[in-house]
Amino acid sequence: MKRIVLLRLGHRPERDKRITTHVGLTARLLGAEGMLLASNDPGIVKSLDGVVERWGGNFYVKNDVNFKQEIRKWKEEGGKVCHLSMYGVNLPDVTAELKQCEKLMLVVGAEKVPPEIYQLADWNVAVGSQPHSEVTALALTLDRIAEEDPLEKEFSDAELTIIPMECGKKVIEKVRD
Amino acid sequence: MKRIVLLRLGHRPERDKRITTHVGLTARLLGAEGMLLASNDPGIVKSLDGVVERWGGNFYVKNDVNFKQEIRKWKEEGGKVCHLSMYGVNLPDVTAELKQCEKLMLVVGAEKVPPEIYQLADWNVAVGSQPHSEVTALALTLDRIAEEDPLEKEFSDAELTIIPMECGKKVIEKVRD
Repeated sequence: MKRIVLLRLGHRPERDKRITTHVGLTARLLGAEGMLLASNDPGIVKSLDGVVERWGGNFYVKNDVNFKQEIRKWKEEGGKVCHLSMYGVNLPDVTAELKQCEKLMLVVGAEKVPPEIYQLADWNVAVGSQPHSEVTALALTLDRIAEEDPLEKEFSDAELTIIPMECGKKVIEKVRD
Repeated sequence: MKRIVLLRLGHRPERDKRITTHVGLTARLLGAEGMLLASNDPGIVKSLDGVVERWGGNFYVKNDVNFKQEIRKWKEEGGKVCHLSMYGVNLPDVTAELKQCEKLMLVVGAEKVPPEIYQLADWNVAVGSQPHSEVTALALTLDRIAEEDPLEKEFSDAELTIIPMECGKKVIEKVRD
């Protein structure tokens, strides 16, 4: 079973709150097991934990990690690290390699990232060498390296489930025992 | 030549500034011709115009549009409208249909959208029936309906160009006459 984890760097509470939430929602939607947040922001954890509680699955957020320690540990356990940015090799050129990787950490920064990340990463990957949304970089990478269509996945133990329909909203709420 | 335009609804200046900027950058990166902003926020226009000036291409932002008028006009000219949300039919089930469409308006809202949009749209499409990032919804839809890989595209008349490389940053600046 392939494992993908997300490392979020450079998050500034307040300023990046909403973008980091979108990053976390995207990681959860597209098959990452959790997000490591290299910053102290309990609000992000609470918000994403609330999503998991209502909408299911096992996605986790680990607050205030030391990014170097997390990368070292991941690599010691055989994991690889891929940093997504405006720079680096183009995603289409490494998709096949990334797809083969059984244990992959994806790293996305906010406006500034510690420069060592370029050395620590096994791949520096650009998702189009253009001004960049880290949400989009993450979304396209996860979608393109997925083994099965991540949009067909169901989340376990959901309280709320949307019934797809052509026009309108239908949400089923399961009452827990 | 296929035309795709983005309509951004429900944008609240200040609160949504960064997410709407990410939405605009994503639309530009992945092949939309421009963004219609159904809200008055000259700051967004300025910021994205600056990106186009430095990084090339012809992406435009039209500020403070009336969304109903824009949709009516688009449809009169033979265009179709696809609203991306948490609800609606799942993207994989309509990708082929959307791909055939020669003139497509994609609509993404912020937290609240005017309910008429569900009726005005030819398709209401969920990008995973899960809590939702509009940046990701837009990114996956544009990527999946593209005829050629949008990440291989070059932007015309760029002042700045990134040279993809494995480790490091290299940006070439072209001095204009």
